[in-house]
Amino acid sequence: KPYDARFSSRVITLPGMVNLDVLDAKNVDWSSATAAALTGGFTMITTVQKCSTLTGIEQEIESAHKIAGGGIRCDYVLLAAASNSNSSVIPAASSISQGLYIEPEAGESSLTPWLSHFKSWPSSSPIIAKASGQALASLLFGAVLERREIHIRQVRTREDLQIIRISKEKGMSVTCDVDVMDLYAKSASDLAISVADKEALWESLDLIDAVTGPPELVISLLLQSEGEGRLPQGWVRSRLVDNPRRILGLTDTKDTYIEVDMSESWDAPAASELSGTKCLGKVRRVVLRGEIAFLDGKVWSAEGAAKNETRLVVEDASTMLPSSDARKETG
Amino acid sequence: KPYDARFSSRVITLPGMVNLDVLDAKNVDWSSATAAALTGGFTMITTVQKCSTLTGIEQEIESAHKIAGGGIRCDYVLLAAASNSNSSVIPAASSISQGLYIEPEAGESSLTPWLSHFKSWPSSSPIIAKASGQALASLLFGAVLERREIHIRQVRTREDLQIIRISKEKGMSVTCDVDVMDLYAKSASDLAISVADKEALWESLDLIDAVTGPPELVISLLLQSEGEGRLPQGWVRSRLVDNPRRILGLTDTKDTYIEVDMSESWDAPAASELSGTKCLGKVRRVVLRGEIAFLDGKVWSAEGAAKNETRLVVEDASTMLPSSDARKETG
Ligand SMILES: [Zn+2]
Ligand SMILES: [Zn+2]
Ligand SMILES: [Zn+2]
Ligand SMILES: [Zn+2]
Ligand SMILES: [Zn+2]
Ligand SMILES: [Zn+2]
Ligand SMILES: [Zn+2]
Ligand SMILES: [Zn+2]
Repeated sequence: KPYDARFSSRVITLPGMVNLDVLDAKNVDWSSATAAALTGGFTMITTVQKCSTLTGIEQEIESAHKIAGGGIRCDYVLLAAASNSNSSVIPAASSISQGLYIEPEAGESSLTPWLSHFKSWPSSSPIIAKASGQALASLLFGAVLERREIHIRQVRTREDLQIIRISKEKGMSVTCDVDVMDLYAKSASDLAISVADKEALWESLDLIDAVTGPPELVISLLLQSEGEGRLPQGWVRSRLVDNPRRILGLTDTKDTYIEVDMSESWDAPAASELSGTKCLGKVRRVVLRGEIAFLDGKVWSAEGAAKNETRLVVEDASTMLPSSDARKETG
Repeated sequence: KPYDARFSSRVITLPGMVNLDVLDAKNVDWSSATAAALTGGFTMITTVQKCSTLTGIEQEIESAHKIAGGGIRCDYVLLAAASNSNSSVIPAASSISQGLYIEPEAGESSLTPWLSHFKSWPSSSPIIAKASGQALASLLFGAVLERREIHIRQVRTREDLQIIRISKEKGMSVTCDVDVMDLYAKSASDLAISVADKEALWESLDLIDAVTGPPELVISLLLQSEGEGRLPQGWVRSRLVDNPRRILGLTDTKDTYIEVDMSESWDAPAASELSGTKCLGKVRRVVLRGEIAFLDGKVWSAEGAAKNETRLVVEDASTMLPSSDARKETG
């Protein structure tokens, strides 16, 4: 396919992209993680605070916001992590976080605590979960019982895709994302998913609502495939911009866009797991709220310059949240 | 409570009871299992054929019917066992079995094969499943997606009861049974469920649709508790007669009833796990279709005298069953 001819010397413009890859707020280096995001054309990263106490959840999340605020070079959202024991206290943190993050551990086979979360987390705030197999089916069952929307992170098996497909077909409000590393996995690699599961991902493009992954590779891998005709027109923009924003419940960020130079054809670096995989397009410029955040390989956005996108949650009469704690936070 | 005064010298009459305890058709001694059933006032037992081939399922089930037919002293139903690989072939056996039996094994974490069963098993024929924890939630999710009624066998944890309670509250067509051995478990026993789970069973009497277990103990243990006021009036009959029949999709059996002598108060035998547990009522007489099948301790019903209750399944236009194979079977 003559993509070079079609695209060369052309620059395309997209709104700032949102990476749904959920980073651990306790371990993230806010400055370098947000710089890497900008380099890849993302103007927002997603993080999660795994609170270590039951009584100090709000303080822990406030403190995470404070640390983030000093380092961020692009926008971020912070999710509150559900545990199997914090369903009664964590809703108090819903006004200072962007959503709830559920990731059942291997031993946590009981649905009961997650049902409590589905019931008590405000319905206006998203729930994002990472689970596979029976744990996934179990969570989806809880979601359907409590009529909750739910987003499933990093789907990577044919079985999970099929469960999500049937759920969608039956009218459930479920969305999902996949990791770009799985979409382009090389079968030689140790960490790679099976050939059959990778095939299933490519056969499920209609089902996949968002793509996440290492910021420096995501859009260029996808643009290469779009150029080759392996991805439908418009797929890249919807999976990197529109859908992730909708899933997180975000409105557009004003005067925020990226420019991608489509004349650049390159290979994924030798050090990466996708070494040698064809890539198309280089992010040349990122503008965040009217200011240049990234230009020609250099991050211009200073530490602490960006925003916490945590919105004010509209109080829901059906929840029993201490509403006195709700406040607008902008970093 | 003065149950002795109220009930002594009294005989109560009930329709023949149905035991939902699912016996393996390959290992059951039809003659002695049905004799034991009669002794306890059951006029029907439930069995399952676990087919070992994919291509000879109908033959295996026919053969199980033939073996059963030669030994049975009371009625029986035969369920067809679902496996994770037989969903496309087993519906052909729906006209010669009473329902589908699903029991996922420990390693079978994928929902996909069970979803296929929910889709392809005729909707007029019941599905009975045994599962706990995530496997249970996963099956219930499949059932809700495919809008299938489902019966859950032998619920024995507080968590599972809670999932079933929420499912029922949300309008799902789910029923469940418990084993009488769990209801009366002695905490000293090795096999016993935890004290907390046993308490949960007793707190969930409204949720429990049927009681199963060793035929010689079931009704007498329950009548004792009814006499003590621990069980509501009418609970025993609905859980041993009406509900199990409805769950299996059976109509009433004509001229079939049992007589229980309520003047007998006794203890569960020392050899049993419930050694010493108080029991009330002895089954004196069982009449099966007008003939005495059991009287004063002696089984009168001859081997091969009873019936296979497998009904003709009304062909469902939405299924792709070979209808040529449907036939009426009465042993
Ligand atoms: Zn990641
Ligand atoms: Zn804050
Ligand atoms: Zn803050
Ligand atoms: Zn797989
Ligand atoms: Zn049993
Ligand atoms: Zn037969
Ligand atoms: Zn036959
Ligand atoms: Zn328990």
